[in-house]
Amino acid sequence: MDQPRQRSRWELAVDLSGHEGPLFLRIARTIVDEVRRGRLRPGDELPGSRVLATTLGVHRNTVLAALRELSAEGWITTEGTRGTFISSALPEVSAKGFAPTSARREEMPVRVGYALPLAGRVASEASLPVPPRRGMLSLNGGIPDVRLVPTAPLARAYRRALQASGRAWLTYGDPRGCEHLRAGLAEMLSQTRGVAATAESIVVTRGSQMAIDLVARTLLSPGDVVLVEALGYRPAWDALQAAGARLVPVPLDADGVSVDAVRAVIAEGGARAIYLTPHHQYPTTAVLAAGRRLELLELARRTKIIVIEDDYDHEFHYDGRPVLPLASADRSGVVLYIGTLSKVLAPGLRVGYLVAPVPVIDRVVRTRAFVDRQGDHIVERAVAELLEDGEVQRHIRRARRAYRARRDVLVSELRLRLGGALAFGVPLGGTALWARVAGDIDLSAWVAEAGARGVTMQQGQRFAFDGRARPFVRLGFAQLDESELREAVRRLEGALVRSAARLYPRGEKSRAPVKPEGAPPRNPPRSVRVRPGP
Amino acid sequence: MDQPRQRSRWELAVDLSGHEGPLFLRIARTIVDEVRRGRLRPGDELPGSRVLATTLGVHRNTVLAALRELSAEGWITTEGTRGTFISSALPEVSAKGFAPTSARREEMPVRVGYALPLAGRVASEASLPVPPRRGMLSLNGGIPDVRLVPTAPLARAYRRALQASGRAWLTYGDPRGCEHLRAGLAEMLSQTRGVAATAESIVVTRGSQMAIDLVARTLLSPGDVVLVEALGYRPAWDALQAAGARLVPVPLDADGVSVDAVRAVIAEGGARAIYLTPHHQYPTTAVLAAGRRLELLELARRTKIIVIEDDYDHEFHYDGRPVLPLASADRSGVVLYIGTLSKVLAPGLRVGYLVAPVPVIDRVVRTRAFVDRQGDHIVERAVAELLEDGEVQRHIRRARRAYRARRDVLVSELRLRLGGALAFGVPLGGTALWARVAGDIDLSAWVAEAGARGVTMQQGQRFAFDGRARPFVRLGFAQLDESELREAVRRLEGALVRSAARLYPRGEKSRAPVKPEGAPPRNPPRSVRVRPGP
Repeated sequence: MDQPRQRSRWELAVDLSGHEGPLFLRIARTIVDEVRRGRLRPGDELPGSRVLATTLGVHRNTVLAALRELSAEGWITTEGTRGTFISSALPEVSAKGFAPTSARREEMPVRVGYALPLAGRVASEASLPVPPRRGMLSLNGGIPDVRLVPTAPLARAYRRALQASGRAWLTYGDPRGCEHLRAGLAEMLSQTRGVAATAESIVVTRGSQMAIDLVARTLLSPGDVVLVEALGYRPAWDALQAAGARLVPVPLDADGVSVDAVRAVIAEGGARAIYLTPHHQYPTTAVLAAGRRLELLELARRTKIIVIEDDYDHEFHYDGRPVLPLASADRSGVVLYIGTLSKVLAPGLRVGYLVAPVPVIDRVVRTRAFVDRQGDHIVERAVAELLEDGEVQRHIRRARRAYRARRDVLVSELRLRLGGALAFGVPLGGTALWARVAGDIDLSAWVAEAGARGVTMQQGQRFAFDGRARPFVRLGFAQLDESELREAVRRLEGALVRSAARLYPRGEKSRAPVKPEGAPPRNPPRSVRVRPGP
Repeated sequence: MDQPRQRSRWELAVDLSGHEGPLFLRIARTIVDEVRRGRLRPGDELPGSRVLATTLGVHRNTVLAALRELSAEGWITTEGTRGTFISSALPEVSAKGFAPTSARREEMPVRVGYALPLAGRVASEASLPVPPRRGMLSLNGGIPDVRLVPTAPLARAYRRALQASGRAWLTYGDPRGCEHLRAGLAEMLSQTRGVAATAESIVVTRGSQMAIDLVARTLLSPGDVVLVEALGYRPAWDALQAAGARLVPVPLDADGVSVDAVRAVIAEGGARAIYLTPHHQYPTTAVLAAGRRLELLELARRTKIIVIEDDYDHEFHYDGRPVLPLASADRSGVVLYIGTLSKVLAPGLRVGYLVAPVPVIDRVVRTRAFVDRQGDHIVERAVAELLEDGEVQRHIRRARRAYRARRDVLVSELRLRLGGALAFGVPLGGTALWARVAGDIDLSAWVAEAGARGVTMQQGQRFAFDGRARPFVRLGFAQLDESELREAVRRLEGALVRSAARLYPRGEKSRAPVKPEGAPPRNPPRSVRVRPGP
């Protein structure tokens, strides 16, 4: 230990209000401040505890606690009876080496002390979830009605999982997810979707989004070409691009994605993967035609490209039985099948899954281990119990009935009030309706006016790979009940009349249809043809 | 529609047992099989439903359901009274174009139809969590005793969160996490750690692991140099490397990481970031000395490198007050502060957090949006309630008392039974003890024999950046109670005697200390000096 260089001349008339918390801690932090700004230097001796206590007007025990704190942190050393000294192991720091002491310690640094990467590295603004506003009727698509969720059984199942013997679900576990849930999902997929999954070929993810991201990180390399639907799901694109993929949009029509276009891209320069939503195409809800399914599988088998099949709302098919997924017919191990309970139960639970051959699952799990190590096994165990009890199945039946009725209400209300403004096919399934907006309507003005009247809907542009405006809107019908849907359409009508006031005579309640509506086209209108982006 | 080419000659004496599920679905799938293998071709006419029903020996309604299914999928078309035909939109596919029909449809494809990337892209084997075996006494470090978790209040809080008005927590929300929890964490950090966080400067993550991964993906570019502790936390390294970082190990000693070595690396070629565990260094539990903290902050400020501070078990400090984190003294916005409730409550809840200046949080959230969109807001709301009620704080006090007593039991048992085999300092905090193994002990043999006797411990090699063996073990003391700890050490002793039988006289119960143990060195032994890897 060095000799003390000098008795501290530190005046203790300092402002302890610069710190919060217990008094002893405020004293200790203030002394540290003085070291930092260089007024106390290594080797300086501190006044005795009695002196300090008197000067500060506090009990001596408080000072002793402050000194213990400083000692534990290594700021001071006590040399028996010789006194207490600022630790000599501290570097000599001049006052200017630190932020000015006028900076308030109670605030986060406002500036960032290093270079931030370009914003292009991260997700686009359009991908960020928009928090719902109170009182708004949201026709945004893809959101289930969480008011229908059987919360009481879920809460009971959660409690049981939490208090299970040994508290096994509270600690670290299998990064593939709770085995009960994987087994339950495998049974469900096998029985209702013809996907011969086993518990070993499933990894439970935090929603379908994490499944997409894990696949991208595990299987893609920078520069890999990945085909995507020209109208599609932007957060998936973000994940694929973050893994370095070069995305190529593929046009789609009423029968889903064009396999001829896929073939052309592959013939041109090859591709690593295709990401698509064949069941109810997002956002158009088109069902990929059977012939195209076969062609696509055959093409993928032959060219060894990965088919990432995102089957995000399989259960909600209203007319005819749901079409079985591509994965049910995959014999060559090219399909990665992604699903979620976000639409079935609730997005907030964040339970999704990936089904793939075991060697792929093994790789994906090794990525998952450093992403978040594992899912929430308590929630997973609780959901597994609801599956075992048939609670999920009963909920699906209830929700399907409700959503079908809501779809029908939306369809009839739209025909009644907006028949001339919107042309659409009745969606066979899904939770939203994709409608073409008549050419003489200023869609942005309508959406803005609707927002002002408390109803939101999503414009086609939001889903376009090229970001260009499209004369389409997506109207979700699952999250509002029938009377809310009627009110929402009334507001849409009012907004349209208002926004198009210059086009229509004052007082006219609704526009006459521009053309007679015949049998609605199969879903969606044939006219939904999109050219690939640049 | 083409003219039907021929009446189907398909014999219906087919084996429906190739499919599972409802009868109508098995019939439909079998017909699809026949299309796939080319025995039925586009334009082929199917027998009438009555004929089919008779041939198959099923009710006609079942056949009609199968046909509806096939029609919905697009495999067949019904031309009014003319009959039912295999859809002409199907491609002409020859039988050899598909997998042999002998492949069982009930199984996942066993091979993968595309190239898997090299294994080097994903996490190392050592990073994968090892599932605990029944009856094993695990001295693996870093795991809290989940038996102490107050599950009843947590279950009640979960139920309340689930059933809150409007079911707000069940749907999509803020990717930064539940605002109540962010506010509660900010208060905790401000009061107990001097980290002036606000709800806006926090993002709630799925454990500290996701915070590390999000930081890596958002702020690192391929080739960036990131300094890490030469003994450290491998899953963090995996995440940093997955983002393309080039890791450079930095030696450490009893005072934590060597700032001189950090300075030398930066002087040589610069660095983008340093990742470290200053509070209780992982795995050695060394506390980074105050002088080094100041030096490091100053160095980072000057060279604009990111300091990723992983403060994973701040609460568990037993002697003196916990040292405040680097983030508490950061005035220049260089520190990214990462914490978790995994040790405080339970790893299974996966609640961690990142504290950073708001511009950084804004970027991180945009990454998070495509990783898993958001956390589990129901769990987050429940935990927030436990924080508000003081339940977490009470639990921390209980756990800290228990862990301190367990540390003392482990220390005295080790001294009693393994005093000659292990040299260690008493850890000031954390949930594990880092001990040097005497030079004449075959550590691997000891660990293997211990495993056979039902007790696990972790070797130093597991934590070494260079992967080389180290004569150290890490012994966790938090997850076992006092009697379990005594039993575990007894088994370790037995295993040592057995594994070293050739070195010690038969029947000798424990080795005499090789050297007298003086006052144990401050934590950890000064001799823990590690050279950087190649």
